[in-house]
Amino acid sequence: MKNSISREPFPASRKIHVSGSRHNISVAMREITLTDTRLHGRHGETAPNPPVTVYDTSGPYTDPEAHIDVRKGLPRLRGEWITGRGDVQQLEDFTSRYGRERLADPALQHLRFEHLRLPYKAKPGGNVSQMHYARKGIITPEMEYIAIRENQRAEELFTADNQLWHQHKGNNFGAGMSTGWITPEFVMQEVAAGRAIIPSNINHPESEPMIIGRNFLVKINANIGNSAVTSGIEEEVEKAVWACRWGADTIMDLSTGKHIHETREWIIRNSPVPIGTVPIYQALEKVNGKAEDLTWELFRDTLIEQAEQGVDYFTIHAGVLLRYIPLTAKRMTGIVSRGGSIMAKWCLAHHKESFLYTHFDEICEIMKAYDVAFSLGDGLRPGSIADANDAAQFAELETLGELTKVAWEQDVQVMIEGPGHVPMQLIKENMDKQLKHCHEAPFYTLGPLTTDIAPGYDHITSAIGAAMIGWFGTAMLCYVTPKEHLGLPNREDVKQGVITYKLAAHAADLAKGHPGAQHRDNALSKARFEFRWEDQFNLSLDPDTARSYHDETLPAEGAKVAHFCSMCGPHFCSMKITQEVREFAAGKGVDEQEALKAGMEEQSKAFIGQGGEIYS
Amino acid sequence: MKNSISREPFPASRKIHVSGSRHNISVAMREITLTDTRLHGRHGETAPNPPVTVYDTSGPYTDPEAHIDVRKGLPRLRGEWITGRGDVQQLEDFTSRYGRERLADPALQHLRFEHLRLPYKAKPGGNVSQMHYARKGIITPEMEYIAIRENQRAEELFTADNQLWHQHKGNNFGAGMSTGWITPEFVMQEVAAGRAIIPSNINHPESEPMIIGRNFLVKINANIGNSAVTSGIEEEVEKAVWACRWGADTIMDLSTGKHIHETREWIIRNSPVPIGTVPIYQALEKVNGKAEDLTWELFRDTLIEQAEQGVDYFTIHAGVLLRYIPLTAKRMTGIVSRGGSIMAKWCLAHHKESFLYTHFDEICEIMKAYDVAFSLGDGLRPGSIADANDAAQFAELETLGELTKVAWEQDVQVMIEGPGHVPMQLIKENMDKQLKHCHEAPFYTLGPLTTDIAPGYDHITSAIGAAMIGWFGTAMLCYVTPKEHLGLPNREDVKQGVITYKLAAHAADLAKGHPGAQHRDNALSKARFEFRWEDQFNLSLDPDTARSYHDETLPAEGAKVAHFCSMCGPHFCSMKITQEVREFAAGKGVDEQEALKAGMEEQSKAFIGQGGEIYS
Repeated sequence: MKNSISREPFPASRKIHVSGSRHNISVAMREITLTDTRLHGRHGETAPNPPVTVYDTSGPYTDPEAHIDVRKGLPRLRGEWITGRGDVQQLEDFTSRYGRERLADPALQHLRFEHLRLPYKAKPGGNVSQMHYARKGIITPEMEYIAIRENQRAEELFTADNQLWHQHKGNNFGAGMSTGWITPEFVMQEVAAGRAIIPSNINHPESEPMIIGRNFLVKINANIGNSAVTSGIEEEVEKAVWACRWGADTIMDLSTGKHIHETREWIIRNSPVPIGTVPIYQALEKVNGKAEDLTWELFRDTLIEQAEQGVDYFTIHAGVLLRYIPLTAKRMTGIVSRGGSIMAKWCLAHHKESFLYTHFDEICEIMKAYDVAFSLGDGLRPGSIADANDAAQFAELETLGELTKVAWEQDVQVMIEGPGHVPMQLIKENMDKQLKHCHEAPFYTLGPLTTDIAPGYDHITSAIGAAMIGWFGTAMLCYVTPKEHLGLPNREDVKQGVITYKLAAHAADLAKGHPGAQHRDNALSKARFEFRWEDQFNLSLDPDTARSYHDETLPAEGAKVAHFCSMCGPHFCSMKITQEVREFAAGKGVDEQEALKAGMEEQSKAFIGQGGEIYS
Repeated sequence: MKNSISREPFPASRKIHVSGSRHNISVAMREITLTDTRLHGRHGETAPNPPVTVYDTSGPYTDPEAHIDVRKGLPRLRGEWITGRGDVQQLEDFTSRYGRERLADPALQHLRFEHLRLPYKAKPGGNVSQMHYARKGIITPEMEYIAIRENQRAEELFTADNQLWHQHKGNNFGAGMSTGWITPEFVMQEVAAGRAIIPSNINHPESEPMIIGRNFLVKINANIGNSAVTSGIEEEVEKAVWACRWGADTIMDLSTGKHIHETREWIIRNSPVPIGTVPIYQALEKVNGKAEDLTWELFRDTLIEQAEQGVDYFTIHAGVLLRYIPLTAKRMTGIVSRGGSIMAKWCLAHHKESFLYTHFDEICEIMKAYDVAFSLGDGLRPGSIADANDAAQFAELETLGELTKVAWEQDVQVMIEGPGHVPMQLIKENMDKQLKHCHEAPFYTLGPLTTDIAPGYDHITSAIGAAMIGWFGTAMLCYVTPKEHLGLPNREDVKQGVITYKLAAHAADLAKGHPGAQHRDNALSKARFEFRWEDQFNLSLDPDTARSYHDETLPAEGAKVAHFCSMCGPHFCSMKITQEVREFAAGKGVDEQEALKAGMEEQSKAFIGQGGEIYS
């Protein structure tokens, strides 16, 4: 087993930890150090630029002080909080029959995570979901961690008169966003109301708590997973680390090939972010791909198997009802959801209602015993522009709303999945309908793609829709890579997808007016304007790429302090010219406005007199 | 001089020509041939898929029947139309002093386009702009060409009962779009009203006529140009051909280094699309980079020099007024427009109003004599999210509106340039203000970028804003490459930028409900659903990339007819499963809806009985 995972810290960055009210609440963030601004016209004087703190999903991997051994997994950050609540028991064996079979199989020895722990579960009749605690008025350590994390130290660093902290008023379409910085109380209220979820299975104590909700930072998910044709376990763990490094807030393990069980264990044990799965995929593997052979019992066992490993949320296509399936008959692209088409096949084969729907209450019983959240799947989402917003799609959405209420009766956390392929003029309707039918449960969309004509570029066709629907209130955006519709994404594709969705989510934060969101944009633009190239790169989402693109045509180190770049050459840089305009005005001891008012003929003459010195 | 330009036709595509009412109106388009659909359950029967016709900016280069010699330039497609109007004269020498100097310089012999023609100009006192003709009620051959081109043969191929021609109703925010297919009369009316422009200098007869206007397909521009640091003439011509190949509707030559004059000649003579420039750049070169040494006379000579070469539109920053400059003093990123900062420097140095503004009428006199269109530059556009929608930006916009009216008094065509960096919630305001102040002249924006935090990915941060502002009514989108803010784009960057902007423009066409726009999406999705992989690739904006991404994990030719891809493997493909569901229903001679109504127990048993055959 290779142990070569990505550990390089980001440039000019250090991992910092912000403490909470309890000794073991220590929230990891990333602090980016900046260079000083040279003050022109004031002989060698400089002004410091304070460091910028940003949200950090990369986990201990980018902390040089953290000792990582993937064979042992990450530290169990939440371990004490979970056991400290006194409402869990550690089981004496795995409950799932399939899980026990895998464990007993000697042929899998070499693939198995060695340091398995016996799973935890709620005490009989108990409920360990964060929603349950929130509804009892309890602020858990997870909630406090999240409040600190979301603020990114803004509550400490903000100064009203500093241009770097200015931002445009947003438009959040009437969402109930916090009027100030996020507090643990606000987190609790949002979770209690079901407007936000904290995916945090008690068997995944390694995860750094995070929240998915309209009134928080827009989050993104990256998909990883092997398939029958390519990839192996080592590659999958590194994919997870790699995705988190670049900004994935959660990861879904969508493996469909061999060793799903073992692969997932490695991933969860080493993942600082919540993990989601689509249990029906593994269930289908167990019946050798024959959808009609699926049974509720098999599915139930799979849910427990995965819950006891620590999966934080399950995509469950419980809204694909028998009577909705014919609504897809005339579609351009039928049913594009894997889970949705599996269930459709089962329903037609048995002429029965989906067992996911008929056994939904029992699913809830399982979820609440481990705190697994629902991601109610959009099995009937549109897979083409032509099918957007059709009857099948919205019929399922209404059922998901109905199921949300059922889950909430048991305090089980819920988010709702969404499309897909939707042209821009139809995107708002999706958000409006989801808010209406699903009682403000968080929305989690796949894009949407805003046109079908660009396979190879679907990370972009969907970034457009994702940014817009994030602005309208969607809480999490599932990434799309350049390989969408074509094949399995490789490492570079995963990075492209993550960065693309990070920028789309951030564009949505700005548009919503999320407090403090514009700080990073301001800091980067200030660095750009002042030709602090290294700072510009280091503040960006992908410093390596920014730096290497710059270096392609102007590689010398001297160029990084040079006041031009290859785009325009030394004479033309408009920022350079603007600087000179300001310097001139400053040199006369007046700002430009004053200079003009005072009558500038004198200054003009002096300006021209300096002519020989303006261009170096 | 290398003659290795991109000539490869697109796969499964041929250049077709659609005739107009006159013998020499022959509109080039691209026709993509598709394979047949296999009809499942009907032993070897197939149904043909009609070819799909799409708009084609690539010019004769992708026509294997066209003989191309870049030393001679492209055929003078519009030549007879221009001279046939009887209102032009061919001059006996170039008018521009600088142009004559370059021509006389033996040292430039080796760089010069050999087959120079003497330039054409309106007869004294004349006006050869397309707007002038339109306002006289004349439908020019250019206008008819455009109507045919915009329709992409839809008026001939559309059938109301064919799912491929269905599309969602759009939302065009009250624009006066044509209720049916585009007609020459509609083109004339839009141009007469100033809502659209046809950039078509009488000295650029090689260009294939196109239109820029809110009520037509959204267009994109690609920038090319050398700078002091890199690139040469041969590379620049190929960049233009390359950009057009992938979909650029116009090209701006933004060269700032040596040999701007000669480079431009090569480009225009070989460009099938309109060419724009920013004349102040070359003027600045002529005064060795000293903005304060610019004069009106030098600028005037430069306009004439470029007009007589055939430049179709000039970016002129006539709205950067002396009194607006102080409004930029407190900005985060000052003045980011090269032209804007040059003029700002000049105004401050001379304490005078911009000569572009004070001599605007004389500029119009030049424009109308050659039919050069204005692209009124946004010299005070915001270069950071922080500066979006500020006083400087909108002050300039109002002046551009005032200047639009002045230009229209002389029937000179005008479009208005726009931002920049604008967060999503502030984009609509830009469109609303531009419509209000600029009397519906076409809007031509640079993005806008919706966040500053992702240099290296600014083609994406801006595609989001561009798609949205295109939807709101912007007529042309100036592309942004991954190298934005960092350096000069290379060939691959240009392609990335063009494809990205093509998809953004198309997403806008769909959202506006442009008649027929969804046809290509439908055809591609149908191909995707039916596993006609080659058709899916060939219909996409970038067939090469789509194919190679697919081949990366599944390279065998057999895989292209295989009913799965590496994303999911052979058992899981949801489209495959959906096919099976439909096949089953079809095999029983009923569609799914009927099957369910009739009671499906019988079918269910048969379905399971076939179980062994469902998965291959």
